[in-house]
Amino acid sequence: MRIDIITCLPKLLESPFADSILKRAQERGLVEIHVHDIREYSTNKHRKIDDYAYGGGAGMVLQIEPIARIIDELKEQRSYDEVIFMTPDGEQFDQNMANEMALKGNLIMLCGHYKGVDERVREHYITKEVSIGDFVISGGELAAAVMTDAVVRLLPGVLNDETSALTDSFQDGLLAPPVYTRPADYKGMKVPEVLLSGHEQKIEDWRFAQAVAKTKARRPDLLKKE
Amino acid sequence: MRIDIITCLPKLLESPFADSILKRAQERGLVEIHVHDIREYSTNKHRKIDDYAYGGGAGMVLQIEPIARIIDELKEQRSYDEVIFMTPDGEQFDQNMANEMALKGNLIMLCGHYKGVDERVREHYITKEVSIGDFVISGGELAAAVMTDAVVRLLPGVLNDETSALTDSFQDGLLAPPVYTRPADYKGMKVPEVLLSGHEQKIEDWRFAQAVAKTKARRPDLLKKE
Repeated sequence: MRIDIITCLPKLLESPFADSILKRAQERGLVEIHVHDIREYSTNKHRKIDDYAYGGGAGMVLQIEPIARIIDELKEQRSYDEVIFMTPDGEQFDQNMANEMALKGNLIMLCGHYKGVDERVREHYITKEVSIGDFVISGGELAAAVMTDAVVRLLPGVLNDETSALTDSFQDGLLAPPVYTRPADYKGMKVPEVLLSGHEQKIEDWRFAQAVAKTKARRPDLLKKE
Repeated sequence: MRIDIITCLPKLLESPFADSILKRAQERGLVEIHVHDIREYSTNKHRKIDDYAYGGGAGMVLQIEPIARIIDELKEQRSYDEVIFMTPDGEQFDQNMANEMALKGNLIMLCGHYKGVDERVREHYITKEVSIGDFVISGGELAAAVMTDAVVRLLPGVLNDETSALTDSFQDGLLAPPVYTRPADYKGMKVPEVLLSGHEQKIEDWRFAQAVAKTKARRPDLLKKE
């Protein structure tokens, strides 16, 4: 898999991609992540990449030209499954979309910044608009990092323990049950007896009951989907 | 405002907090962000902070002791409005919660990692569990960065243009209308005439109509909330 991220703040993405599973996945050759700086594609001598909005109003708008040049150049080199724009009014990212995206070959992710990106980019270059949630953050960089992490960790070979991702919340339609580790007693706060029993079936039943109870209490909408 | 982030991967958070508005907000003294490494609070000679789950199963669980030591130490120094745990089964983060949190004084954010955190931390130390969406990422660090960004940009004085945040998507219950900037014609793709007209009232009407149409098409649920 190859992910090309287009941003005007490439530095912002340095540490998330240089650590944790994203680093390991790249080292193992399971994913290639390339970050492209919009400013390097500006034809303006001051490397300007944004300008005021037509019609007035606060905030700067990313111009079409440098972004179009990057996308055109990338598409000349290989074909892309999706050209994604990270935006709060996009389609809601969720585990189903993560699963779908993990099956793709090449993705472009464009990060908006400032007030937004010229609408013509969205009309003519973007194939999918994605939001990580109903909130506004200062740019698409963290959203692209979140989406990349969620997708890359699903690629076979990225997680050390293959079964670990399968028991995550949402993969089976239930929230994950509580987990406990040593010590069994911390200042009087104890681990439930059943988990210390060594009785596999009882533990499995307890976990399932806990997962169902938690899902009913916190996210009854997940149960209705079935 | 002060935000204390507790993590086992402090390096992951370096670049998001060292750039963009989060950097500027810290430089202006509008927010203090402190990142605490769980490993430094381990009493184990190998700096171990996780262990296998009681009852078996894949994935490591963060232990209660080092996390409890950090939280206790922080609470001795000042009082906190919330001790937040970033977790996919928490309450959904949205712009309303961002607005609420922006009014708080001191917040702790605990980032989970690996399979999760010992349930006793959640029961006894956490006051609020927050999810940025229905998907699983490899740790709470990116979620904490997203939440921090969304909250900090709302603090007065952080954004250069005060009106910029107020016209964002979600703040008025509508998605933002399209924006355009120079050039007016890029390879035949043109900016809508009205935006070049200089007629303020027509522009405002057009933007409102576009925002309503986009919200109806993409997020009718936002309109029903009114």
